[in-house]
Amino acid sequence: MGITLRRFLGVQPSKALLLLPFLLTFVLVGSQGEGNAMDNVATERMAEESHRQDSANLLIFIMLLTLTILTIWLFKHRRFRFLHETGLAMIYGLLVGVILRFGVHVPQSMSDLVLSCAVNASPATLLVNVSGRFYEYTLKGEVSRSKGHQVQDDEMLRKVTFDPEVFFNILLPPIIFHAGYSLKRRHFFRNIGSILAYAFMGTVISCFVIGLIMYGFVSFMKVVGQLGGDFYFTDCLFFGAIVSATDPVTVLAIFNELKVDVDLYALLFGESVLNDAVAIVLSSSIVAYQPAGDNSHSFEAMAMLKSFGIFLGVFSGSFALGSLTFSVYHVTKFTKLRDFPLLETALFFLMSWSTFLLAEACGFTGVVAVLFCGITQAHYTYNNLSPESQDRTKQLFELLNFLAENFIFSYMGLTLFSFQSHVFNPLFIIGAFVAVFLGRAANIYPLSFLLNLGRKNKIGSNFQHVMMFAGLRGAMTFALSIRDTATYARQMMFSTTLLIVFFTVWICGGGAASVCMPLSLCLCFIPSDGCFSVKITRRNTKHESAWPFRIWYNFDHNYLKPLLTHSGPPLTATLPACCGPLARCLTSPQAYENEGQLHDDDSDFILNDANVSSMYADVTVSTDASGSRTINRKHSSTASTGGDDGLDHELALAEHEVAIRGTRLVLWITLILNVNALYVR
Amino acid sequence: MGITLRRFLGVQPSKALLLLPFLLTFVLVGSQGEGNAMDNVATERMAEESHRQDSANLLIFIMLLTLTILTIWLFKHRRFRFLHETGLAMIYGLLVGVILRFGVHVPQSMSDLVLSCAVNASPATLLVNVSGRFYEYTLKGEVSRSKGHQVQDDEMLRKVTFDPEVFFNILLPPIIFHAGYSLKRRHFFRNIGSILAYAFMGTVISCFVIGLIMYGFVSFMKVVGQLGGDFYFTDCLFFGAIVSATDPVTVLAIFNELKVDVDLYALLFGESVLNDAVAIVLSSSIVAYQPAGDNSHSFEAMAMLKSFGIFLGVFSGSFALGSLTFSVYHVTKFTKLRDFPLLETALFFLMSWSTFLLAEACGFTGVVAVLFCGITQAHYTYNNLSPESQDRTKQLFELLNFLAENFIFSYMGLTLFSFQSHVFNPLFIIGAFVAVFLGRAANIYPLSFLLNLGRKNKIGSNFQHVMMFAGLRGAMTFALSIRDTATYARQMMFSTTLLIVFFTVWICGGGAASVCMPLSLCLCFIPSDGCFSVKITRRNTKHESAWPFRIWYNFDHNYLKPLLTHSGPPLTATLPACCGPLARCLTSPQAYENEGQLHDDDSDFILNDANVSSMYADVTVSTDASGSRTINRKHSSTASTGGDDGLDHELALAEHEVAIRGTRLVLWITLILNVNALYVR
Repeated sequence: MGITLRRFLGVQPSKALLLLPFLLTFVLVGSQGEGNAMDNVATERMAEESHRQDSANLLIFIMLLTLTILTIWLFKHRRFRFLHETGLAMIYGLLVGVILRFGVHVPQSMSDLVLSCAVNASPATLLVNVSGRFYEYTLKGEVSRSKGHQVQDDEMLRKVTFDPEVFFNILLPPIIFHAGYSLKRRHFFRNIGSILAYAFMGTVISCFVIGLIMYGFVSFMKVVGQLGGDFYFTDCLFFGAIVSATDPVTVLAIFNELKVDVDLYALLFGESVLNDAVAIVLSSSIVAYQPAGDNSHSFEAMAMLKSFGIFLGVFSGSFALGSLTFSVYHVTKFTKLRDFPLLETALFFLMSWSTFLLAEACGFTGVVAVLFCGITQAHYTYNNLSPESQDRTKQLFELLNFLAENFIFSYMGLTLFSFQSHVFNPLFIIGAFVAVFLGRAANIYPLSFLLNLGRKNKIGSNFQHVMMFAGLRGAMTFALSIRDTATYARQMMFSTTLLIVFFTVWICGGGAASVCMPLSLCLCFIPSDGCFSVKITRRNTKHESAWPFRIWYNFDHNYLKPLLTHSGPPLTATLPACCGPLARCLTSPQAYENEGQLHDDDSDFILNDANVSSMYADVTVSTDASGSRTINRKHSSTASTGGDDGLDHELALAEHEVAIRGTRLVLWITLILNVNALYVR
Repeated sequence: MGITLRRFLGVQPSKALLLLPFLLTFVLVGSQGEGNAMDNVATERMAEESHRQDSANLLIFIMLLTLTILTIWLFKHRRFRFLHETGLAMIYGLLVGVILRFGVHVPQSMSDLVLSCAVNASPATLLVNVSGRFYEYTLKGEVSRSKGHQVQDDEMLRKVTFDPEVFFNILLPPIIFHAGYSLKRRHFFRNIGSILAYAFMGTVISCFVIGLIMYGFVSFMKVVGQLGGDFYFTDCLFFGAIVSATDPVTVLAIFNELKVDVDLYALLFGESVLNDAVAIVLSSSIVAYQPAGDNSHSFEAMAMLKSFGIFLGVFSGSFALGSLTFSVYHVTKFTKLRDFPLLETALFFLMSWSTFLLAEACGFTGVVAVLFCGITQAHYTYNNLSPESQDRTKQLFELLNFLAENFIFSYMGLTLFSFQSHVFNPLFIIGAFVAVFLGRAANIYPLSFLLNLGRKNKIGSNFQHVMMFAGLRGAMTFALSIRDTATYARQMMFSTTLLIVFFTVWICGGGAASVCMPLSLCLCFIPSDGCFSVKITRRNTKHESAWPFRIWYNFDHNYLKPLLTHSGPPLTATLPACCGPLARCLTSPQAYENEGQLHDDDSDFILNDANVSSMYADVTVSTDASGSRTINRKHSSTASTGGDDGLDHELALAEHEVAIRGTRLVLWITLILNVNALYVR
């Protein structure tokens, strides 16, 4: 952990690495005039002081989180819902930022032993020769030009500012993994085509639209003389890429609580999860766009193609890595690790994290790999876990996700005041807001129109408006923009991005309820009290999974699942007779036991004509092996997502007979639900 | 997190901070001869390369942990028990260390832009002036003198070596907290006097005995000419302090599995947990021992007294902080946070961590604070948690503890080869082994003799031998010794400590079973299969809690518990009538409900004459409010620690009527158990 954290910032010395040999001047600030032992004590005391300071800073964050949790509870308890918890965390962060910035003054401490030596380069590692002994120094970053000699003043503020890699290596992975692990695969796969279209095409469209608009604005600013530094077209595109990532954290949190329509939720969530991945890879491809020759910011086809190649390579590499690591986990099928839930949970956690690290070590994108790892873990590995480990892993990642999420958002608030080199340019900010709005519109509306041509279950205009409105920017946009704040262009981007995140989370997030209500999309407004005012959008259109998915599904269900997990039909039944011995060897004993009553949550994407309009009604449909169907209606006071999972699961059961034959059967579960009647308690 | 991790090593420049002004020489290794953009790209690529390397390094550790977990499972499965899992983790660490050291060669990379500038000081922060821009560098540590110019070769090895602060700030707190949280308070408090004696007096005795013996050895080495640097008496004492900390991790793990006698376990565990705390504070007091004047290593009474004052101050401060933070958590009693287990768990986790940080920020010892925090959390807060949160927090800390513990031990193995400046001195090592052995003996045997004069329930000589043998050194000794490896003395200490840890964990840990067996102390040898061969050490001596504990218990049970938790008698019943309104206001509604059937696990240390010899028999004794007693015998196949808790709990129930009156009642639970009969399945 520490290794990753301690790596230096990677700030580019850029234009500073000039060639001309420089006059060497040493400015020794502070006194080193005592004896040997005294110095020793001084250094020790300094280190102690610094450690104490660090602890205090971290304590500030922990206190912030504690405060947020208590307020979240208060909000939930009082059912106050016009400010979301992420918005809340940001407000607390802002307040603490203001206090730190203007309220606290650190006295000049022991630690101002600052040695200033003027040399002609700023390498990552510096060796200092002190009377024959060599001390190693690492680059921490550039200090603002004007503040060359008053570094100490900002010491505390700078300490509160984390290494951006912390976000990428510590905080984002659990959030993204949790998103993949808790994905509602049924509805996700039902809309997979549209989700992929929005995530890939949409993000690219949005990136280029925003990039072009920003380029226009920046050119205008140059003419007006409002620009204080270089801002190239690639910078504009980079801005477009990072700002195109809509946030699964916020979207998930807000719309999950609002309980919007199932398909809308699947579209929103699927898109926002995947477009994070796309945005990461896209932005790194844009950074990698380096035309040959001197004119480094002009257009060149070869470099463009190379960038595109990098995009495809990194994305598919990350995807493959994330999806394939589970096969290592395959060992758990034949071991009796299930008997030791602690070992199992630990192994599960480590394997998931190692996916991330492996991808990073191979030069792919860890966050993307961890997303697909989460999805496949939920799809295959979850079935092999003991029930206790299933609970444990779920709870563990839920907690990690919760902490990381709130930490990021309160940190965002704090950054507005603690970050040292903000560049707020009113023109650029206005331009960015316009561009973000237009970019989102250019993503949603044209794509929806095209998708509706092919979809039987159309994406209604009210859905489109909500998707347009729900383009919240959050953790990923922030993490991408804070990753590199060395140049003027990047600093301006960072400041602007921060404002965009604040605006979208507070205004769009807080107003989500008010938008859904008139469009009659929300099922529930008081989540902790059960859904009384359930509103059903009834669809009679039939929705079919595309044939490639059906083929994949059959392969997965008949061969992959039995091979990798305890569930699914025994391989002896699905493999041709000639492979008998191999099949017997690879099939787990449980598979035979389970043959009659398969637990398979994933008949989902073969779902053809099921006409269930409400996902929140607690209706369970169970089918035994003979195919007879029983429908149980349960009276439930809370319509939680747990109920949703239950429905998913039970529907899946009903379909297993259909699915196993691999033919397109039409299953008529026409549940004419009088939901209001169900909810009479 | 990152903040704490990124702080520099705090290595003392010590003798290097000489005063004479030095010739300024700059040796520029590597070329910085290209254009602006090219440099930019180079730096970026360099950062990327470094990041990739970091990920790969971390991946090594994750893989190590995964391997350890799989082997642990195999060992548990095959019931192979002559090598403990911590020893196993070390062996894997060793193997990887060998491979990294001798098998892998990193090619000279982009990152050898090493600038060597000879100046006359090595401050913590260095400002480098590059054509008007200021870059900040932080001290990473001293590079071995002979390797001044070949730093790159050791780059990878150095990267694998963590910042020691990681151990103190990230890895140790969960381990220590878990130890406190899972402490079996019943048996702990029954033996509290002896435990405190061993932990405080014993550790101080051991520290001084080891220090004196080592001083003898060091003086002898100086005469023989085997000493390559300074080694003062304070260094010897420091070595004595760090080596006196017996490890709760290993002791807990090994003896918990062996299921030794209850009291022996309580003594061993209590001593090893508390003496860690004592050793930390003791070692930092020794470091703080700085006599005035030039002769910095002579004896001086004032400095000695000051050190003693620091010891008392830091220890009691940490204790108070740890025990008092729970009162902040008090809010949970009156809120309905119980309805949201996720929020509750998160808050619990954060509060525990903030205790650690608060103590560090105040200059106390976080590890000590977190230990007492764990004990009080288990005592008070645990009762306020919802059942789901109780499970969640237990599981969470169990997992964190497991991961941290295995990580530390595999890291220890790795360090033997990856650490750069080992000083293996055969004489010193022999001396250290002798000193550790004698120090432990001088702790256990005389103290046991003295304690036996006062104890009614004597500590038998077989107990004493096991305690002598169980003085395993582990995580804490390692963490304390790696914390500062700047001088020759400290390096030699570190290398020797590493060997001591290896020896004690492998030999003493692996042989624990063989030692317990002839001394007929172990109850069980095949833990996963239930205890068939339970051996009972029957004691008919009566054991009484000392009167200060009874007074404290009454105060705690009648006032503190009802005030802070939902359990205990309602305050309205215990407070005098004049405080009626206040009492009503402070008593939670649950307290009235629970009045008849109190859940109070902690009547433990008022336990007077209970004569229960076996803790592993599943006998539950329950008493209703009227005082009638029923004894249920359960047939159980596994005699887990859960059963123990159950017994604790039920015994507590039986005593509440007694305890509530605050008088010394004698409760005759004379369970003449035919344990073998119980275990017929």
